[in-house]
Amino acid sequence: MKLKIKDMDIATGGPLVAVLNIKDAMKFDIHHLDRIKIKKGKRVETVVADIAENSKAMPEGRIGMYKEVIASLKLKNNDKVSIMLARKPLSIEFIRKKLDGKALNKKEIDQIVWDIVHNKLSESELTFFVAACYTNLMSIDETIMLTKAMARHGDTLKLDKYPVIDKHSIGGIPGNRTTMVLVPIIAAAGLTMPKTSSRSITSPAGTADAMEVLAKVSFPINKMKEIIMRTNGCIVWGGSLNLAPADDKIIGVERTLEIDAESQLLASIMAKKYSVSSTHILIDIPIANGGKVKNKEEALKLKQAFEEVGKRLRKHVKVMITDGKQPIGNGIGPALEARDVLWVLRRDKRRPFDLEKKCIAMAAEIFRMAEVKGGKNKVMEILDSGKAYKKMKEIIKAQDGKIFDPGSIKIGRFGLDIKAGKSGVLRRIDNKIIARLARVAGAPADKGAGIYLYKHVNDKAKKGENLFTIYSESKHKLRFVKEAMEKLPGAVAIK
Amino acid sequence: MKLKIKDMDIATGGPLVAVLNIKDAMKFDIHHLDRIKIKKGKRVETVVADIAENSKAMPEGRIGMYKEVIASLKLKNNDKVSIMLARKPLSIEFIRKKLDGKALNKKEIDQIVWDIVHNKLSESELTFFVAACYTNLMSIDETIMLTKAMARHGDTLKLDKYPVIDKHSIGGIPGNRTTMVLVPIIAAAGLTMPKTSSRSITSPAGTADAMEVLAKVSFPINKMKEIIMRTNGCIVWGGSLNLAPADDKIIGVERTLEIDAESQLLASIMAKKYSVSSTHILIDIPIANGGKVKNKEEALKLKQAFEEVGKRLRKHVKVMITDGKQPIGNGIGPALEARDVLWVLRRDKRRPFDLEKKCIAMAAEIFRMAEVKGGKNKVMEILDSGKAYKKMKEIIKAQDGKIFDPGSIKIGRFGLDIKAGKSGVLRRIDNKIIARLARVAGAPADKGAGIYLYKHVNDKAKKGENLFTIYSESKHKLRFVKEAMEKLPGAVAIK
Repeated sequence: MKLKIKDMDIATGGPLVAVLNIKDAMKFDIHHLDRIKIKKGKRVETVVADIAENSKAMPEGRIGMYKEVIASLKLKNNDKVSIMLARKPLSIEFIRKKLDGKALNKKEIDQIVWDIVHNKLSESELTFFVAACYTNLMSIDETIMLTKAMARHGDTLKLDKYPVIDKHSIGGIPGNRTTMVLVPIIAAAGLTMPKTSSRSITSPAGTADAMEVLAKVSFPINKMKEIIMRTNGCIVWGGSLNLAPADDKIIGVERTLEIDAESQLLASIMAKKYSVSSTHILIDIPIANGGKVKNKEEALKLKQAFEEVGKRLRKHVKVMITDGKQPIGNGIGPALEARDVLWVLRRDKRRPFDLEKKCIAMAAEIFRMAEVKGGKNKVMEILDSGKAYKKMKEIIKAQDGKIFDPGSIKIGRFGLDIKAGKSGVLRRIDNKIIARLARVAGAPADKGAGIYLYKHVNDKAKKGENLFTIYSESKHKLRFVKEAMEKLPGAVAIK
Repeated sequence: MKLKIKDMDIATGGPLVAVLNIKDAMKFDIHHLDRIKIKKGKRVETVVADIAENSKAMPEGRIGMYKEVIASLKLKNNDKVSIMLARKPLSIEFIRKKLDGKALNKKEIDQIVWDIVHNKLSESELTFFVAACYTNLMSIDETIMLTKAMARHGDTLKLDKYPVIDKHSIGGIPGNRTTMVLVPIIAAAGLTMPKTSSRSITSPAGTADAMEVLAKVSFPINKMKEIIMRTNGCIVWGGSLNLAPADDKIIGVERTLEIDAESQLLASIMAKKYSVSSTHILIDIPIANGGKVKNKEEALKLKQAFEEVGKRLRKHVKVMITDGKQPIGNGIGPALEARDVLWVLRRDKRRPFDLEKKCIAMAAEIFRMAEVKGGKNKVMEILDSGKAYKKMKEIIKAQDGKIFDPGSIKIGRFGLDIKAGKSGVLRRIDNKIIARLARVAGAPADKGAGIYLYKHVNDKAKKGENLFTIYSESKHKLRFVKEAMEKLPGAVAIK
């Protein structure tokens, strides 16, 4: 029997799904969430069946298709297709196995990742996998296999270079724009650093958001390679590439419950590094009370896991444990962070010294790992001589950018100064509240929105002195910020 | 800011979901799977946000709504609504707690069940809950709390009677239509038995499917009560009532992975019994190699758990462990099973003696539990005197049915006889293959389709003798059966 296509005109954004009327479903003995094979000419695609209980939702004789299925089978509205019951994807059995607390082997993990990448799992099935890995922890072996499988089922960047440098900072700290300072330093030293970064999800800015203030960040992988071949480095948005795509889908599910399986975190970070052929990887683990890594003990445990996974993947991995209890740098929000970065690179006296200090330590560590002589002195020479800034200009140009001067970066027109209510020493800056206020002000969507800090923890402040300014691109949003501040007091504490 | 409704003209069948264009989502700082409050006049509903990446899927300025949201807010297409970011449901935190292996308290379980019933959880969040209960087993305490919460958040049937009898057979055995024989026997003895049954999901027939051959099975709860007040019993479809509705949603998620958490199974069965005020409950656990309960050890463990939960709920619970290695009764499929039942009640010589024997033992056990004197002799008297058949006629009439005569039940017009390939003793009947063939023949959607067995295990068969007949309502489906038989040999084994 054949059914006529009804184009639902919606994308599911993931699983391949088709909708059947309940009467048709009964004829074919198809149930909600069963798999069906849809055939049109020589093309065949297996999808998840969704059953519409009444003919308003889906008339008899028709089959509703979401964008992904339409695209995969190259269908048009009113085309006719034949359908038949299909087996569930192979990985269902393996997910159940993991849920039952058993270890998975390479073939099984590979099949699961393949099914994830190809949208063969329903949201619920993918969730069962994530939950299984979370409750029945993955072993180091499984984590390695997952890392490799995620990298394998996606694009990879092959570079005929050695060493290939990479770094990753565990997120959750406002500011902390180290990548944009490090890449030009490392590239200026003649090393290769093919850096991919993320956009913000819940923070005021990701590295990709900040870099986008200066240049383009979305490139196909061959263009990324060109940029690296020309400049030794790049700072691009990982989301524009198809690197370890399974990872993004897994993270999407984790986000619903705000859980973070350690094995998942490791595999997620390392798979992206593996995909771009990195050989030397520096991991920055900031400790912050309200952050991802809450104390030294957790940090050391994670450090050990990173080192173990690195060794097993035959990568040089080094972990730095850093202080994340307050924002790093003065600017928070894409434009304000990009300006901080350019100020550091141009040796401007307005540059944030905390960010600079951290970047110098990280660059020196990378030189040590890559056996480049000179350490901190060499980093200072690259910065002070203007080589790092010159390299940044090259990278910005290679990435089709035109902004090299911090003065031409547009900051939000509307500002709200927050002043000290009393004199004293600044004891605490609340990362979460600062991040929230910057977002309410419009960051990261409004590039110029955010917060500029004049003081950091342990600085003295006099009553009435400016502590920070909130910038926004609209008066409207600045009003929201004022409302938010009433609900969220305590962004900064003075004693 | 306000958005204009776009009626998606589809039901999600569960979670409350609205679709936003990505630009609008960014303006409101709303992300995929965030919760948003939608306001129209005085009505407010909290839903899950789905983000459309392009304006073809959802234009800017519009908000797509599925049926459930439209209904809840009484909206019309092109209505304008205001939206704002909302907090996630309270139960998210509790689900995470269970996922982290901690025990939940009454308030937490109650909140989760409330959120499930009111469609407040996304499919992924509900899956995390099911996975958490599966991997971090629920204690008896938690199971009791879950049972009561599921019953509380749904309709309940209050009966001013004592005792109130109920029974449940763990599924997976073809035939086994004990309920339709037991209810008239028990009701004829003057006891009250408000029986709700399920329809088939993956089997050739559920009790509700078979009863529907004789009478209506969908009733609102007040009509169900009327039927019971008039006849002492009923055999209705639980799905037409709103008894423990959270359970159906949980089972829907379990089904995707074909898992069965023991605590979930217990809570699921007991919540439905609790909802109809049962006081004496007989549980039938059939052991079958390929069934839900695979061996004696598993059966004893489950028996103990049922008895413990029963005691804690202050219900009289008795568990019978029975043999489920072959189909029970001769007919498999709604009409064929209903005919078997009427044959037993009418003492027809064609009645299936295995089904009769099992029902007599179960009825005697119920009499013992309810302290009704006479045991098996009393059961036989009720059957042989025609009282049970008379009671069944009363119930069928009360349920608006007209078929009392097995001869007027329509069996599929097209039959395929399967004959013994050699003489010998019948050693095995494969439940799964028999069930599959009956489904391919059209059961349960085609009421007359199914299989009629002439032989059971240990019966002798001569070469060429009929072993079973497959009935279908169309030649077309019978052809499918022939194909299926080639792929699935070994329905019956003779040695």
